[in-house]
Amino acid sequence: MDRIPILKMGDALLVTIQVDMHDRLAMALEEDLTAKIAATGARGVLIDISALEIVDSFIGRMLDNIAAVSRVLDAVTVVAGMRPAVAITLVELGLSLNGVRTALDVERGMRLIQGQLDQEGLGADDKARGDARGRRAR
Amino acid sequence: MDRIPILKMGDALLVTIQVDMHDRLAMALEEDLTAKIAATGARGVLIDISALEIVDSFIGRMLDNIAAVSRVLDAVTVVAGMRPAVAITLVELGLSLNGVRTALDVERGMRLIQGQLDQEGLGADDKARGDARGRRAR
Repeated sequence: MDRIPILKMGDALLVTIQVDMHDRLAMALEEDLTAKIAATGARGVLIDISALEIVDSFIGRMLDNIAAVSRVLDAVTVVAGMRPAVAITLVELGLSLNGVRTALDVERGMRLIQGQLDQEGLGADDKARGDARGRRAR
Repeated sequence: MDRIPILKMGDALLVTIQVDMHDRLAMALEEDLTAKIAATGARGVLIDISALEIVDSFIGRMLDNIAAVSRVLDAVTVVAGMRPAVAITLVELGLSLNGVRTALDVERGMRLIQGQLDQEGLGADDKARGDARGRRAR
């Protein structure tokens, strides 16, 4: 297996990391994700790491990278399912995943992405309404 | 990694198979799935096999088993993302996954499960309405 599958679920892409990440696999994942965001117009990336017992600085950096690239492509990144022990280790390592939003599980992660999109949608609606009001006032 | 993560998404459980399945892993997956269906009250099981380049009789049997056990626990099983080459091989092997529903990708698989549940829900509503009508007639 030299590719991690990326599943489209509504407006989001779901990635479940189950295998040990090595350099090439991480790069392939970043490339595939970027291509898939562009191809599908996905607005969110949900990465489930509940299978990972160890998250080292390499994976931490990969998650940060994915979040940064996704943000440039206008997609929110949420990391879901981190084990408590992993969270402790991450903080001890000084990796606090600043650029990445987190959720307890995939379901909440999906809600987080949806909430974010709804909020943006609302923003757009408000703007549209504001414009309409502006037009009416003229 | 000795466990395949099972993700809860709404009424369904999502399993992405990315690694080569061996006996113990397949048994662990079946056990975990059964426990999770019971614990969460999930009504559907969605198994994504888009990462698998080869599906042999062992995996075919595992999928059949999972579908059979899920059915007993009142959950629909849908296998999603099968590669065309895999489908050809399966049929050539004489494995047509009779007990399992299939979908082209996870998104359609999820819709299939949702559709099935809605239909059952409709059935239950009809029954309830029928009962109400019966009661009113009395």
